[in-house]
Amino acid sequence: MQNQSILLKARPEGRPTLAHFDLVDTPTPSLEAGEVLLETLYLSVDPYLRGRMRDVKSYVPPFQVGEPLNSGGVAKVIESKNPDFQEGDIVLGHLHWTKLQKGSADLRKIDTRLAPASAYLSVLGMTGLTAYFGLTDIGQPKAGETLVVSGAAGAVGSVVGQIGKLLGCRVIGIAGSDEKTQWLIEELGFDAAINYKTTEDMQKALAAVCPDGIDIYFDNVGGAISDAVMTLTNDFARIPLCGAISMYNETSVPMGPRLDGLIIQRRVRLQGFIVSDYTERFPEGIQQLATWIQQGKLQLRETVVEGFAQTPQAFIDLFEGKNIGKMVVKTS
Amino acid sequence: MQNQSILLKARPEGRPTLAHFDLVDTPTPSLEAGEVLLETLYLSVDPYLRGRMRDVKSYVPPFQVGEPLNSGGVAKVIESKNPDFQEGDIVLGHLHWTKLQKGSADLRKIDTRLAPASAYLSVLGMTGLTAYFGLTDIGQPKAGETLVVSGAAGAVGSVVGQIGKLLGCRVIGIAGSDEKTQWLIEELGFDAAINYKTTEDMQKALAAVCPDGIDIYFDNVGGAISDAVMTLTNDFARIPLCGAISMYNETSVPMGPRLDGLIIQRRVRLQGFIVSDYTERFPEGIQQLATWIQQGKLQLRETVVEGFAQTPQAFIDLFEGKNIGKMVVKTS
Repeated sequence: MQNQSILLKARPEGRPTLAHFDLVDTPTPSLEAGEVLLETLYLSVDPYLRGRMRDVKSYVPPFQVGEPLNSGGVAKVIESKNPDFQEGDIVLGHLHWTKLQKGSADLRKIDTRLAPASAYLSVLGMTGLTAYFGLTDIGQPKAGETLVVSGAAGAVGSVVGQIGKLLGCRVIGIAGSDEKTQWLIEELGFDAAINYKTTEDMQKALAAVCPDGIDIYFDNVGGAISDAVMTLTNDFARIPLCGAISMYNETSVPMGPRLDGLIIQRRVRLQGFIVSDYTERFPEGIQQLATWIQQGKLQLRETVVEGFAQTPQAFIDLFEGKNIGKMVVKTS
Repeated sequence: MQNQSILLKARPEGRPTLAHFDLVDTPTPSLEAGEVLLETLYLSVDPYLRGRMRDVKSYVPPFQVGEPLNSGGVAKVIESKNPDFQEGDIVLGHLHWTKLQKGSADLRKIDTRLAPASAYLSVLGMTGLTAYFGLTDIGQPKAGETLVVSGAAGAVGSVVGQIGKLLGCRVIGIAGSDEKTQWLIEELGFDAAINYKTTEDMQKALAAVCPDGIDIYFDNVGGAISDAVMTLTNDFARIPLCGAISMYNETSVPMGPRLDGLIIQRRVRLQGFIVSDYTERFPEGIQQLATWIQQGKLQLRETVVEGFAQTPQAFIDLFEGKNIGKMVVKTS
């Protein structure tokens, strides 16, 4: 097999396009003692990768121009000079956007009889854990409370809403198509869902489905949608700030209303978080999520794009909201 | 004595002026059984009262046009038909802006041998408790951390900074005159202080005195000062949102940069609070503050304006930053 990599060709200003990526042939690495050779099976594409295309210091290092991008992925061990791994093992780890690569230090074997390989990139992976810890630890939901989720049909949002229902909340989702809102209500059991793209007055639409106000706002998008939600927050509302996809392609800092007065009067708590802050508690989170899946209480949904070369387009499509549930690329 | 009251004459749009208040003669009330007659000694004027001049629902009811304003105050019992109070008792409570008035339900006797009467409106009162609980409970300071306080020479800020020093923090104050910054450094022991009115680049000025970034930002002002502070926050910074005096006279919602990305990346926690949420813990707070005062570790400073009729002007002057420490009116 001719090995291939996808490189960052140039840093995007604004929305990324295919012109910012390069698909190149690359030699297959040869192994030294202690190493394994991996064939990439699935790559995760996630909105936060957009931040890594900027040349700024953050909680994960930026991508380098001319180098392969990288993200979470699932791979098969096709050659092993490491006694801990055997040919045929399926592993989860941080992978380069490269078909054949040497394994890095963070490889973890996964059991694909318990859940499909891609689930380890979604509900049992980073996005499921993000939903679980962000909602439970920062959102602190109590039965009977009203939870609003933005980006509700996305990888994180769809799990947040389902967990909210499991914990007894009234759950309202905000998403970008009627197909998505219908799915949220009919398949995932959300109490209501609003298509923000066809809703003129978000505040009014939210007020209609949140008669008791909003206790928790799990925010994946930021911007005008959040402004509307904020007007309806109850005293002591909690706001886990998980993402701000509406702003990731902005070329300057967007402006919005200063809400200090509201935040003080209502004693609102806003808190940014990153799933890796909970690394020590991952086993607890995975255990709980797996249990809910086994009990049929938590639905898996993925948008699976086929073909390694399609990875950049799948990533770009996140910003068009083309995914329902987790967007993953089946690379092999 | 001819009794007098200060009424809200009209709701201000923008900055309040004397034209929004009315000083009127009013009859002295006569007592029924169980009641006490009070002579007002001190009235507290506080920025948050500006919010009560608007006709909107909030955590305290709005003032009514044509009715006396009210705020915290200290009074002397001059007649009592209530066995719990004797003539001459000095009491703390919520008082109308009226010279002679009947006592309300929340009266509490205070001991003016322990601290001067006005201290019960400042360091031992609402503003001291606001500083204490906001900093300790939401700010969660640890020795060695950097604490920035805006409105640092005000009633709350000056206590916040002093407590921060007592708890081992590096403390930076932001205030509006050289007299204030000098006082913060030389008298209160702040590590540095910045006069925002004469500083062109707040971010640069802050960076120079916060070489290790900012762990806690106790915010009394909001607006552009907060924007500058936010750029320098460390991971897991805590931001007790106490006040936003820079915005209280705005006639529309001011705009500012959306900081979601920064808040997420750095896992910042912003939390609005109101001192009355800590009512059950007031005894603990008062005890600690009184101990520090007795030990000479916490300085009292008040700007005392003389004369009942000066109460509206004292209130208006808060928005000009004319006070150092707590602004109180000696009404008798």
